[in-house]
Amino acid sequence: MSLKNKILIFCEGKKWLIDKKREEFATHFGNIKITEKERKGKGEYKLVNGKKFYFFLPTIEEFLLKIKRKTQIIYPKDISIMLFYADIKEKDKIIEAGTGSGSLLISLATRAKKGKVITIEKREDFQKIAIENIENYFGKIPKNIEFVIGDVYDENFKLNVEENWADKIFLDLPEPWKAIKILNYLKTGGILVNYNPQILQIKRFVEEIKKLNFIDIKVMEILERRWIVDEKRARPEDLMRGHTGFIMMARKVKNEK
Amino acid sequence: MSLKNKILIFCEGKKWLIDKKREEFATHFGNIKITEKERKGKGEYKLVNGKKFYFFLPTIEEFLLKIKRKTQIIYPKDISIMLFYADIKEKDKIIEAGTGSGSLLISLATRAKKGKVITIEKREDFQKIAIENIENYFGKIPKNIEFVIGDVYDENFKLNVEENWADKIFLDLPEPWKAIKILNYLKTGGILVNYNPQILQIKRFVEEIKKLNFIDIKVMEILERRWIVDEKRARPEDLMRGHTGFIMMARKVKNEK
Amino acid sequence: MSLKNKILIFCEGKKWLIDKKREEFATHFGNIKITEKERKGKGEYKLVNGKKFYFFLPTIEEFLLKIKRKTQIIYPKDISIMLFYADIKEKDKIIEAGTGSGSLLISLATRAKKGKVITIEKREDFQKIAIENIENYFGKIPKNIEFVIGDVYDENFKLNVEENWADKIFLDLPEPWKAIKILNYLKTGGILVNYNPQILQIKRFVEEIKKLNFIDIKVMEILERRWIVDEKRARPEDLMRGHTGFIMMARKVKNEK
Amino acid sequence: MSLKNKILIFCEGKKWLIDKKREEFATHFGNIKITEKERKGKGEYKLVNGKKFYFFLPTIEEFLLKIKRKTQIIYPKDISIMLFYADIKEKDKIIEAGTGSGSLLISLATRAKKGKVITIEKREDFQKIAIENIENYFGKIPKNIEFVIGDVYDENFKLNVEENWADKIFLDLPEPWKAIKILNYLKTGGILVNYNPQILQIKRFVEEIKKLNFIDIKVMEILERRWIVDEKRARPEDLMRGHTGFIMMARKVKNEK
Repeated sequence: MSLKNKILIFCEGKKWLIDKKREEFATHFGNIKITEKERKGKGEYKLVNGKKFYFFLPTIEEFLLKIKRKTQIIYPKDISIMLFYADIKEKDKIIEAGTGSGSLLISLATRAKKGKVITIEKREDFQKIAIENIENYFGKIPKNIEFVIGDVYDENFKLNVEENWADKIFLDLPEPWKAIKILNYLKTGGILVNYNPQILQIKRFVEEIKKLNFIDIKVMEILERRWIVDEKRARPEDLMRGHTGFIMMARKVKNEK
Repeated sequence: MSLKNKILIFCEGKKWLIDKKREEFATHFGNIKITEKERKGKGEYKLVNGKKFYFFLPTIEEFLLKIKRKTQIIYPKDISIMLFYADIKEKDKIIEAGTGSGSLLISLATRAKKGKVITIEKREDFQKIAIENIENYFGKIPKNIEFVIGDVYDENFKLNVEENWADKIFLDLPEPWKAIKILNYLKTGGILVNYNPQILQIKRFVEEIKKLNFIDIKVMEILERRWIVDEKRARPEDLMRGHTGFIMMARKVKNEK
Repeated sequence: MSLKNKILIFCEGKKWLIDKKREEFATHFGNIKITEKERKGKGEYKLVNGKKFYFFLPTIEEFLLKIKRKTQIIYPKDISIMLFYADIKEKDKIIEAGTGSGSLLISLATRAKKGKVITIEKREDFQKIAIENIENYFGKIPKNIEFVIGDVYDENFKLNVEENWADKIFLDLPEPWKAIKILNYLKTGGILVNYNPQILQIKRFVEEIKKLNFIDIKVMEILERRWIVDEKRARPEDLMRGHTGFIMMARKVKNEK
Repeated sequence: MSLKNKILIFCEGKKWLIDKKREEFATHFGNIKITEKERKGKGEYKLVNGKKFYFFLPTIEEFLLKIKRKTQIIYPKDISIMLFYADIKEKDKIIEAGTGSGSLLISLATRAKKGKVITIEKREDFQKIAIENIENYFGKIPKNIEFVIGDVYDENFKLNVEENWADKIFLDLPEPWKAIKILNYLKTGGILVNYNPQILQIKRFVEEIKKLNFIDIKVMEILERRWIVDEKRARPEDLMRGHTGFIMMARKVKNEK
């Protein structure tokens, strides 16, 4: 599973992600013709108008920062933490509501290779973009992803799986407390992750799941601070991303509290 | 690959990680007898002196926070970012210098399952602890890990692999600029990650690799800020970890600059 | 106005704040006799059991960190910002609700020397401690401070001043929206500062004053990150204060929105 | 001492600082005529093309963010902390090297009203701008400010005051370790403040003054994180200022270490 048909071009701090098969690419520094050798992405470079253009295979982080989006994406820093803290495993069965632009979905699908990710989205236009991004990343829709159109806020919403099916559930919803019923699909012992830019939405959701059988509830935010370091300087960058979202995690247990 | 022989016990915010086969476990809240059912780690609980003790399968994060250590460990937040940004893949060939207590090594080995991680440590006492932690996590030493005792600062240090062998190299060394030679084992197009608590060490290393064929050099620090959120409160915790280390990443390219 | 009767003793990162007239002082490093010369606080030192004890006049920051308290104090970093951003002037007329331990009050009173600070507290035991701290700092109660016992949440609460009297109002109350009436004492053009550890309380208060004639509403938090810097090291401290409180500021205007 | 001849205009989050005597002012929302009443800055507003323009007396913070500059200014958040932690008093004698655009100088001069601030700058063009800003703020050059053109790195640099004259010294220099001699003007017991955007410059300076008679050396950075709070939202702003500078403080003592 990889970005096999993409190549990353790097020049003076700028990055472009393009289809490998393209033979020419226009930048404001000039037009670049891509040779067979460069297409391998092994760090070759080409001089164009005095500028060095380097050719790489993109990382998943580089890919995610370039995906097509209609919604706010979840940033790589937050995805990193959610994947690791939720301990996504090869055979994990995962439910994600909602799909959004698919940045978290791509990441989950690369990990749960022999498992399954059911991703639910209400809006078909969002799902369409996510599918496009998924195809762009994997070449096709991988077998471990199942797309569902549906409204998880709806009392009657149902999935084609048993209760207690999922090892992990990820929520990225404006009003997650309306989707409490989906948590029935989570195994006891399973892990719930809820992502939201607003602390008040986090609080309201925490209040709700505290009434249910969830414990070890943690809320955190992750700040990534970039530094400028070179021969003469060592200092943080002037501007930083001050906020993306809050991450909430919890464990489902047996007793009804 | 998993923590098959461990169970996590949770009670009022406290966590204990113990061998599954243990039948009894002493806490200051009282002694706990563990039944067959609880051993499954599916969120069962047991009442002991009025306290609820819950039983889980531990996540890798929970495991890493409990490992035996003689050195400063790399924290889960930093490991999460390094793994994701370096895009560790199943078949990746990785070199890690040095091993330390093995927290990063465990994480790398769970990802590069069909690949290889060669981990180099100068001190046998550190390696011994890392091996113990690895065995604790995986049950035995997995085939994709190769332990090497050696001094990467030594001019004559050599590994049993070809130059350009590694897809990724991770450094966690006090003076990484003394280990520049190890970078010959990194493929062009490959990714270098350097972790260090001191910004001056980062700066000196950046200066060195800027003279060599490395580009897209990024330096960052990751801050994890925990919040207290419940019915009445929504506020960050009073104390937070203000610092662990700086993460430096770079791409190796073909031209000698 | 100054800490005329206090002396600060410094030894190996530790600080003690004592009455100048004391002739002897016990530390776990040994007993210190204080001479007339040391009492001047001009950086003299005394060797006691091989340790150097230095003698200084304390700064207001050093004083505030040592005051007697029954409540959570407002930290110097937050006071610094509030004083400067609210532009406290010599002749400012200020209302503070509530007094708490008096750390903000002391700071306001040192600035508004030819003005007035009316400070309101519901609990007499808190006021008593604040008075003690004030006397400790100024030697006596300065003429520009007026202590009031009262409940600003009470519909009938009144001060002995006209409406539109105050240039600045500072609130440090658990539920500031209950004290909306006090804002009638603020001049149009005047500045309102509201301090609260909880973001939800800030939000609720913002909602209330947005309905009234307040504009340019700003909410911020101030983080102070200490670094360890010496011959060998340059890195942030391991632990930092992750949170104290949120600062909200606004301007009162003429129109009723 | 105040901004007597200025008025602040506020409209939809934007601020303009203009001379009071101006009768008309052009914004992209339309032209504004300023009446006598509005000129008082007491929160009046005027409707122009459906927008409300409010009139205020500016705070020092608002003034500083608008000053003319050729150099990087020191930000209000950092000035707030430096003034408070250094405990600037009415009669303080202060040396500042270098003057820059005068933002710290204005702040110092408003506090040390009955004292003195000697400010040293090498470049006449910088000093000229600082003087312009000072005149803009105070109406004229206040008597407690003395401007000096000079090179504090120069071995032979001298001020017209005695050694041990200053209560506080503030340094804002690219290479402060070259200005060590200026520290002779600081009283024992006095406070040294050094501001620098680069941690390496801070480190080198700390190394130097640790060899001299300075103790209680503290290094910190101040982060101001703005929040968006209204009826629907409570979240930090997307972008924040990630860095301005490091603040170093120390006390001068009697013994030569």
